[in-house]
Amino acid sequence: MSPSRERRLEALPLPEQERAARVGLSRLGEPGAPGMTEVVARHGAIRALERLVTGAVEAKGVIPEHYSFERLQADLEHADRLGARVVIPTDEEWPRSLDDLEHPPLCLWVRGPAGLDEVAARSVSIVGARSATAYGAQVAADLAAGLGQRGFAVISGAAFGIDAAAHRGALAVDACTVAVLAGGIDRLYPSSHAQLLGAIAESGAVITEQPPGVAPIGSRFLQRNRIIAAFSCGTVVVEASLRSGSLNTAAHAVNVRRPVGAVPGPVTSMQSAGCHQLLRDHKAEVVTDVDEVAELVGRLGQDLAPVKRGHTRPIDSLEPEDRALFEALPMRSHCDVEVLSRAAGLTSRQVRAGLGRLELKGLASTDGLDRWRKSAR
Amino acid sequence: MSPSRERRLEALPLPEQERAARVGLSRLGEPGAPGMTEVVARHGAIRALERLVTGAVEAKGVIPEHYSFERLQADLEHADRLGARVVIPTDEEWPRSLDDLEHPPLCLWVRGPAGLDEVAARSVSIVGARSATAYGAQVAADLAAGLGQRGFAVISGAAFGIDAAAHRGALAVDACTVAVLAGGIDRLYPSSHAQLLGAIAESGAVITEQPPGVAPIGSRFLQRNRIIAAFSCGTVVVEASLRSGSLNTAAHAVNVRRPVGAVPGPVTSMQSAGCHQLLRDHKAEVVTDVDEVAELVGRLGQDLAPVKRGHTRPIDSLEPEDRALFEALPMRSHCDVEVLSRAAGLTSRQVRAGLGRLELKGLASTDGLDRWRKSAR
Repeated sequence: MSPSRERRLEALPLPEQERAARVGLSRLGEPGAPGMTEVVARHGAIRALERLVTGAVEAKGVIPEHYSFERLQADLEHADRLGARVVIPTDEEWPRSLDDLEHPPLCLWVRGPAGLDEVAARSVSIVGARSATAYGAQVAADLAAGLGQRGFAVISGAAFGIDAAAHRGALAVDACTVAVLAGGIDRLYPSSHAQLLGAIAESGAVITEQPPGVAPIGSRFLQRNRIIAAFSCGTVVVEASLRSGSLNTAAHAVNVRRPVGAVPGPVTSMQSAGCHQLLRDHKAEVVTDVDEVAELVGRLGQDLAPVKRGHTRPIDSLEPEDRALFEALPMRSHCDVEVLSRAAGLTSRQVRAGLGRLELKGLASTDGLDRWRKSAR
Repeated sequence: MSPSRERRLEALPLPEQERAARVGLSRLGEPGAPGMTEVVARHGAIRALERLVTGAVEAKGVIPEHYSFERLQADLEHADRLGARVVIPTDEEWPRSLDDLEHPPLCLWVRGPAGLDEVAARSVSIVGARSATAYGAQVAADLAAGLGQRGFAVISGAAFGIDAAAHRGALAVDACTVAVLAGGIDRLYPSSHAQLLGAIAESGAVITEQPPGVAPIGSRFLQRNRIIAAFSCGTVVVEASLRSGSLNTAAHAVNVRRPVGAVPGPVTSMQSAGCHQLLRDHKAEVVTDVDEVAELVGRLGQDLAPVKRGHTRPIDSLEPEDRALFEALPMRSHCDVEVLSRAAGLTSRQVRAGLGRLELKGLASTDGLDRWRKSAR
């Protein structure tokens, strides 16, 4: 780093020096470059940038030649033109949940009114297959809408299929939704989702750790997934083939000890095979509706799912003997106590006592000649 | 018991006394009557019958007035006419697996050539909703056929829906299948399955613990389910609503420490809700195909399911740097090393080394002017 370059960074007010340094560092290596995290942790962002670009310190995966102060300035101006802000760990808005990552982002480029700290406090990541089925897309949209209505922000990756369905489900109920991109904040990907991303940025937020202009290539999706996983309170995989990137998101969530839910589907659908594998590997819990997801990722004791019960029938509350007797009673014709005794495996005395109780409950009726049947009611 | 009655039982050869006593006891109480198990365990079947019918011993759920030696004889003759045999615990054929039950059957009435001990050794119970969906019926039939071909006997309850599909799947591949009835061996239930039950009895077995003529009423289905659960090496629930009787079978299987599998399905289907609840309650493992069921209920280390993998691609084996480089390479036009360096986040030196490796693997090609793209291959 030439002395002039360094002076220019130091000329900024101190909080802005930290922000600028992190923007500068973003250009020096890919997210998750192991050397970067270590150097920044040891020296702080400002000294780390100085040492890395002057060659005083070397770090694996860090390329000093990619830095220039002009570029740093251009990046900040570029973001400004796009209406994006740069959020750094010293900001109040910084989502502390990301600090659980082994390699937290250096900074986040953010477009949209949502406060990231608030999003992180009550949120769920809903992810899944790009080639989703109609079933999966419907479930993703329904979950997102239902969770949105219960105050959860819905985080996803803006991809085709499940991701888009989740964002749209949240938008449909005016809930907050956040898209985490794999490329720069100006690289709306996939491009046909430009309108969707515009809608997300208007009410929620579109975020990325990548500087403007960076292309969303494969390895960056994998790094992006760690942000989706750590940002939220938990991740739900709606559909995933055996090679789906959403399994990678689930693995990241497990790593940072966030709960993971998987939505089951037909075993005949390859788009559910990844979900079933997560369940078989005990890396995820079965979730089938909004209540169960809320319980999984929500506040302890506050978002409990109601116990599911089937339809209840009047005979459910009967004692075993009375139930056997009720079942032995014919539906149409009447029959006598001896027949009932044999059919229900009860003594005549037990049958008489039971018939009395069933009659009181309106479950048995007699023809007046001590012959009995199930009540018409 | 009058002295004459007792003499008539004692006039039989000893092994037949034991069999006759158990047939006689079967009329005195419903299966699972707690007092019965205790008295038989303490006194043996022959003395237990004597003491219960003479009133020397009383037992909860046991009704001495339901016994007569004439009836016992009629039961045995009835079975004989139906081509049924009575199997008791002292027989070699007795399935020892049933001894795990808190209340094992007193005896089993059996029609069909299958040896029950052999069935018990390698078998799976496949059960589920009567009102099965087309999806559930197909999965049940496919599992039964596949497991039948791998030498598993398929045990079920002959009900509509999943049960029938499982029996039919096994029959379709000439595999052994066993139907466990809730009523007498002569009470083919449901009656429209008479032909199916006939086919099962011809190659496998139709069995019940109930004496001939006993009606299949509700509480007897619940008792029958404990036999389905304990008889086999494990139980698979294919579809089940939240109130399905197959959840009762699964609970029995858990009680006798048999593995339980549940087939997932669409969360939008109430016929899969019971399966999902079993999974959420950690009472069952997810099973999605024949391999996984075989691993669950089969012999340790011998029926291992193969690991499932998605389709693999040539770039899967690349190191992270080379993979990032490959992904940064354009598909059609060529680009130079500096552009690649920025796009992949690598130094020029790393890009050159990586391009060499990718070119060797046929994954990158050059225009001869040091400009590169993904290989056409």
